[in-house]
Amino acid sequence: MLKVGIVGGTGYTGVELLRLLAGHSQVQLHAITSRADAGSPVSQMFPSLRGHVNLNFTHPDEAHLEQCDMVFFATPNGIAMQQTRELLDAGVRVIDLAADFRIKDIAEWEKWYGMSHACPDLVAEAVYGLPEVNREKIKKARLIANPGCYPTAVQLGFLPLIEAGVIDTSSLIADSKSGVSGAGRKAEVHSLFSESADNFKAYGVAGHRHLPEIKQGLSVAANKAVGLTFVPHLTPLIRGIHATLYGKLTQNVDLQTLYEQRYANEVFVDVLPVGGMPETRSVRGSNTCRIAVHRPQGGDTVVVLSVIDNLVKGAAGQAVQNMNIMFGLPEAEGIDMIPLLP
Amino acid sequence: MLKVGIVGGTGYTGVELLRLLAGHSQVQLHAITSRADAGSPVSQMFPSLRGHVNLNFTHPDEAHLEQCDMVFFATPNGIAMQQTRELLDAGVRVIDLAADFRIKDIAEWEKWYGMSHACPDLVAEAVYGLPEVNREKIKKARLIANPGCYPTAVQLGFLPLIEAGVIDTSSLIADSKSGVSGAGRKAEVHSLFSESADNFKAYGVAGHRHLPEIKQGLSVAANKAVGLTFVPHLTPLIRGIHATLYGKLTQNVDLQTLYEQRYANEVFVDVLPVGGMPETRSVRGSNTCRIAVHRPQGGDTVVVLSVIDNLVKGAAGQAVQNMNIMFGLPEAEGIDMIPLLP
Amino acid sequence: MLKVGIVGGTGYTGVELLRLLAGHSQVQLHAITSRADAGSPVSQMFPSLRGHVNLNFTHPDEAHLEQCDMVFFATPNGIAMQQTRELLDAGVRVIDLAADFRIKDIAEWEKWYGMSHACPDLVAEAVYGLPEVNREKIKKARLIANPGCYPTAVQLGFLPLIEAGVIDTSSLIADSKSGVSGAGRKAEVHSLFSESADNFKAYGVAGHRHLPEIKQGLSVAANKAVGLTFVPHLTPLIRGIHATLYGKLTQNVDLQTLYEQRYANEVFVDVLPVGGMPETRSVRGSNTCRIAVHRPQGGDTVVVLSVIDNLVKGAAGQAVQNMNIMFGLPEAEGIDMIPLLP
Amino acid sequence: MLKVGIVGGTGYTGVELLRLLAGHSQVQLHAITSRADAGSPVSQMFPSLRGHVNLNFTHPDEAHLEQCDMVFFATPNGIAMQQTRELLDAGVRVIDLAADFRIKDIAEWEKWYGMSHACPDLVAEAVYGLPEVNREKIKKARLIANPGCYPTAVQLGFLPLIEAGVIDTSSLIADSKSGVSGAGRKAEVHSLFSESADNFKAYGVAGHRHLPEIKQGLSVAANKAVGLTFVPHLTPLIRGIHATLYGKLTQNVDLQTLYEQRYANEVFVDVLPVGGMPETRSVRGSNTCRIAVHRPQGGDTVVVLSVIDNLVKGAAGQAVQNMNIMFGLPEAEGIDMIPLLP
Repeated sequence: MLKVGIVGGTGYTGVELLRLLAGHSQVQLHAITSRADAGSPVSQMFPSLRGHVNLNFTHPDEAHLEQCDMVFFATPNGIAMQQTRELLDAGVRVIDLAADFRIKDIAEWEKWYGMSHACPDLVAEAVYGLPEVNREKIKKARLIANPGCYPTAVQLGFLPLIEAGVIDTSSLIADSKSGVSGAGRKAEVHSLFSESADNFKAYGVAGHRHLPEIKQGLSVAANKAVGLTFVPHLTPLIRGIHATLYGKLTQNVDLQTLYEQRYANEVFVDVLPVGGMPETRSVRGSNTCRIAVHRPQGGDTVVVLSVIDNLVKGAAGQAVQNMNIMFGLPEAEGIDMIPLLP
Repeated sequence: MLKVGIVGGTGYTGVELLRLLAGHSQVQLHAITSRADAGSPVSQMFPSLRGHVNLNFTHPDEAHLEQCDMVFFATPNGIAMQQTRELLDAGVRVIDLAADFRIKDIAEWEKWYGMSHACPDLVAEAVYGLPEVNREKIKKARLIANPGCYPTAVQLGFLPLIEAGVIDTSSLIADSKSGVSGAGRKAEVHSLFSESADNFKAYGVAGHRHLPEIKQGLSVAANKAVGLTFVPHLTPLIRGIHATLYGKLTQNVDLQTLYEQRYANEVFVDVLPVGGMPETRSVRGSNTCRIAVHRPQGGDTVVVLSVIDNLVKGAAGQAVQNMNIMFGLPEAEGIDMIPLLP
Repeated sequence: MLKVGIVGGTGYTGVELLRLLAGHSQVQLHAITSRADAGSPVSQMFPSLRGHVNLNFTHPDEAHLEQCDMVFFATPNGIAMQQTRELLDAGVRVIDLAADFRIKDIAEWEKWYGMSHACPDLVAEAVYGLPEVNREKIKKARLIANPGCYPTAVQLGFLPLIEAGVIDTSSLIADSKSGVSGAGRKAEVHSLFSESADNFKAYGVAGHRHLPEIKQGLSVAANKAVGLTFVPHLTPLIRGIHATLYGKLTQNVDLQTLYEQRYANEVFVDVLPVGGMPETRSVRGSNTCRIAVHRPQGGDTVVVLSVIDNLVKGAAGQAVQNMNIMFGLPEAEGIDMIPLLP
Repeated sequence: MLKVGIVGGTGYTGVELLRLLAGHSQVQLHAITSRADAGSPVSQMFPSLRGHVNLNFTHPDEAHLEQCDMVFFATPNGIAMQQTRELLDAGVRVIDLAADFRIKDIAEWEKWYGMSHACPDLVAEAVYGLPEVNREKIKKARLIANPGCYPTAVQLGFLPLIEAGVIDTSSLIADSKSGVSGAGRKAEVHSLFSESADNFKAYGVAGHRHLPEIKQGLSVAANKAVGLTFVPHLTPLIRGIHATLYGKLTQNVDLQTLYEQRYANEVFVDVLPVGGMPETRSVRGSNTCRIAVHRPQGGDTVVVLSVIDNLVKGAAGQAVQNMNIMFGLPEAEGIDMIPLLP
C-alpha cells in the first residue's frame, strides 16, 4: 500500500483526488492538509465523501508528509515550489497539479505567473506528466508537473498531426470551451451561478496561462516553435472541456488511421469512428479523452474534436495515472470508472 | 458469475443498469434487448460505455433470456407482466423496474395505469423491493417489484416516524422535486431543454401514479390507511430527487436518535447530523439516500429532507441491490461508488 | 418627469431597477451610487445596459440625492435605515428594497437581523409595499418597505384563504423554492455555478429571515397570530420563485371563484384556470404573480401554487409598482413587459 | 396600424414573434395559424402571453391572410414557398423566417434542403433580409428571406474585414456555438434536457445548411467565392449564439476603428471597446448583435467574437426589423427592449 498525502484539499481537484484515491486498492490516505479547516472532517465540507473518507483535515505542520510515499499538491500556483524540495529530499515523490513545474523556460513562467520561481533546478528535473508522451520518463521521475486541463485536451488532439508532420504548425487554432469548475472553488463573482448559467463567453483572448504550456508541448513534438491561437471560452457545464482544433494539411494522409494508430495502446484515449462527434458528458467523471478527426468537405482544413473531464483527465485522474506509472501499478488502477451519463 | 439479461435497454434506467452491472464483479452480461436497435452496438447509443460494454442490442426473439439467472425489465409499464411468467417458469429470477408488480390492489393499479393486469397472481407473489423494509422477503423472492423513485425517497423519509407511531398519519404531506431524467428518454416537448431548463413547476397535483404506491407502503408501516398529499415538481436537474416531508408530531421524541437507530445497519441510508440539509448532488451517481430530520422552532411540525439519485437508488441501483440480496452477494457489490461532486 | 436616484446599484436588484426605470416613460435617472465603482460607467459592469443607460456610478457624497423625487435603496440590510430620515426631511420619497422597514416589531427585527435598529419611529411610519394589500396606504406614503421575494409569493398565495377565513391558520406550510439570484451578486462559495448547478437543497430550515415577515403579513390578514412552517430551497434557476402552499380547509368553499374574485382587479396577479400549474418561466422578466389553487382528491388539504420572478415582482418590479402608485401614475407604467419564454 | 398574420405559430420563432408584435405600437395581430391547434387560445400553449395576446390559433383555411398587410412564415422549411405567391398576388408583403428564399442557387438549395423548389422566380426576387447589408433593397421588397441565426452572427462578424479587403478569404473559420432553442420546439431525443444539459458537443461538422447561406453572403461582400470552415456546436443555453471567427490578416489595419466605422449607424450592432468579450446573456431577449475584434499577441490571426440572441436578432427580432424597414417605420419600433440580465 502506498502512503499518500494531499496538500490543499479544499478545492475541486482536492475533492476529486479524494474520490479517486478513496477507491484505489493500493492507496492508503495518510493526510490531507488545510490550514483554514484543520481538525474538521473532510466529509463535512464534501458530504459526497461521507462513509468513504473518514479523515479530518490536518494542519500542514502536523501532517508529517515526509512519511508518505507520494504527495499531491492540489494548491494554488506558487505553493508547491516552496515545499517540494524538502519532500524530495525525504524520498517522497511529488506530483504538482498546479503550474509550478510545467514551463521549462523560467523567464516565460515568471512572466505569465507573475512571481519569481523558487527552484528553477527542480523545474529542469520535473517531468511533464502527459503519459501519452512521456510515459517512460514518468516511470523514473521523482517530480511530476501534472498538465493543465486545456493543455491536455489540446495536445492530445494535435499530437498525431504534428508528430506525423502533416500540418502547417505555424498557425494552429485551438478554440476551447471549458466548464465552470475549471475556475476552481473560489468565491468570485464571475463564477456565480447567476453570472455563468445560461451564458457563453470567451475570456483570456489576449493571452491565457495555458498558451505557453500548450506551445511548449507542441513545439517539442514539432521539433520547432509552433504558432498557436488559443481562445478559451466559458460554457455552462460543471465539468468538461471541448477543444475544437483547426490546422492546414500539408499533405494527404488517412487521418482516421493516423489517429487510431497513434493511440492504439493508450487506455485513456479513445478515437471515435469516422464521423464521430464526442460529447463532454461521454467522459463525465472518467479519465478518458475522446477524439474525432474530420476534414470538412474534403478541404485542406483538418478539424479535431477532443473532450475530457477537466477534473479527471485534466487534473486529478491524470495525476493518479501518473502515480500508477511511477509506482509500477496497472495504469488504470482506481481510475477505470464508467462515465456518468446522463 | 451470474448470467444477467436486460429487457429494454435504450432508456435511462437501461443505460444506468449497464453502467452498474459492467463494473459488478459477479455479473456476466448475457443480453440486452431492443426491438428497434437490434444489431447495433450499445456503445453507439451510449458512448459513455465505449470500452466497458461490448454487447450489441439483441432482438428479444434471439436473446434466450431463459438461460439467464436474473432478468431486469427496464421497459415501459405493461411489458414485464406479459413476459415474466415464462421466465419464472424457466427458473429465472426477475426484477421489474417498471410498475407492473408494485400495487397489490389490482383494481387500484388498473385505475392508475389504465390497462388490465395480465397476471394478478404474480402481483400477489411479487415482493416490493425496498430492502430497508423487505430484506428478508427479498432474499427468498423470485420476483421483485422495484420501487419507484419518488416512493423510495418518500418512504425512507417517513418510515421511522410512522413505524414509531409518533405522527398523525391522517394528513402527511410530501412535497417532492425531481430532475428531468425521471421522465425518461422519451422525445416529448415538455422534457426539452428549452422547456425545462431555467424553469420550475409542479405537475400531477391532481394525482400521480406514485401516490397509491407510497400510500400502500406507508399504510403497511402504519398498520392502517394513511392520508397523504403528494405534490411532485420538476426542477432543472438531470438526476436527483429531493423530498420535503411534513407531519404533525403526536408525542415528544428524540427525532435524531429515532432516525439514526432505524437506519443504523443500512449501508445505503445515511442520516445526517443534527441540522443537516442534504443536497441532491451529494448522492449523484450513487445508491445512497441521505436524510435529515428537523423540528423548526421546536413546534409540532416535523420536517424530513430525503434525497436520492432517481436513476440509482430510485431505479437501477436499487435493482442491483435487490439482485445482490437475492443471490446472497454482499449488498453493496458493484454499487458502492462515491458520488460525483461537483 | 420624476427625478429618481438609486443607492447601491451594483447588485441584481440594482441592475434590474435600471432595466425597468430606463424604459419608464415618466422617469429621469438622476444618479446611481456606488462607493467602490464611482466614476465607472454602469454599462461596463452590466453590458446589457449599453445603449440604454449612459450614467456612471456616482460616489454617495456627490450624488445629491436630496434633489430627487424618489430614491430606491438597493443596498444590504442596515444601510437604508441610516440614510432615510435625511431624505424624507428633504421631501424625497423612499422605497427600501432591503428589510430595514419591513418588520414592525423592532425586537423581532433585531433578533433576526442581528443589529440595533437606527430609527424605530420610521419603521412605524413605513408602509409595507404589497399593493394588493396596502394600495391605499401606499398612495399616501413617504416611505415604503418593499416586500421580500418569498414573502410576496407566499402572501399572495395564502391571502384569499386567510381573508375568507376558510383555513386553519395555526399550521400553514410554505414549501418554497428560489433561483440563485435571490442570494444576490455576492461572491460566496455556495452560490458558485459548480456548487448550485445540477443541485437541489433546502436551507434555512431552522429559521429564515423571511419567516417573521410572512407571519406578520398573514397575521394581519387573519387578525390573529398564524402558525407557519416555512422551508426555503435553492433550485438551479437564475430567476424565479415557486411557492407550494398547504393548508387545512375548515369549510367548503369554491376555491377557484374565491381566488378569481380576490384578484379580479389586480393587474399583476393572474389566477390560472382550474387545474393550472404555473411555471416560473411564465413570469420570467415580468412583474406578474401567477397562482393556481388545487384540492387534490377532493380532500381537505388545499394546495396553492404561486410563482413570481424574484427580481421583478419579488424586488425591483414591485418597487416600481409602488412608485407608480405613490405618484399617481398608471400602475403598470414601465413594468408591463411580456415574460421571456423560452 | 399594420394588419399582421403569422403562419405557424407554435414554435419558438412563432411565440417570439408574438412577444415582439404584441408590444409593437403599429401592429394589429390579425391571425396566427395552426392546423393542429386551431381554436385553442395561444396563451394556453404559451402562458407567458396571458393578458397580452388574446387570439386563438386559426385554421389556415379560415385565416384570410390575404387581408393582411404583412405575413410572417414561422414554419418548417418548404411551407412558405407553397403559399407565398398567392399572398404576394393579393398585395401582401411576406417575410419567411425559414430558409425557402435564402439561397439564390436553386440547385445548391435543393441539395442542402432535400426537396425541389416550388418557385425559383420568387427566390430571384426575394431580398436577403440582413438590414446591415441590404437596407435599401429591403425598403422596396415584397418578399424577404429572413437570415438564419448562425448566418446573422457570422456575417456581421466577418463583414467589416471582408468588405475592407484585409483578410485572406480563402480559409475563413467560424467556430460557432448555439443554445438549444435553435433546434426548435420539436420533440427529439437529442434536444431533451437530460441529453443536452451539462453537455457540450459539435454537430454537423461534415456540413450544415447554414454553410452555403454564410458563404453566399460573404462571397457577395468579397466579390469572389470565399472558403469557409463552419463548425457548429450545441451548448447548454436556452438562447444565444456565440460565433468565434478566425481569419488571416493580409495587411495592417486599425481593427477597432474599422469595426466602429462600419457599424457607426447601425442601431442593432454594438462594437465593444478594445479588449471586450461579449457574453450571450448581454443580448438575451434583445435584437442586438455585440461584436469585439482581437488580434492576439499582435499576430496576423484576427479573432472576432460575435453574439446574438438566436430567437431575436437571429429570427423574430430581425424579421420585425425588416418589417419596420419595409413599411417606413422607425427601425427599432417594438424591438428596442433591454436585455434580461441576469
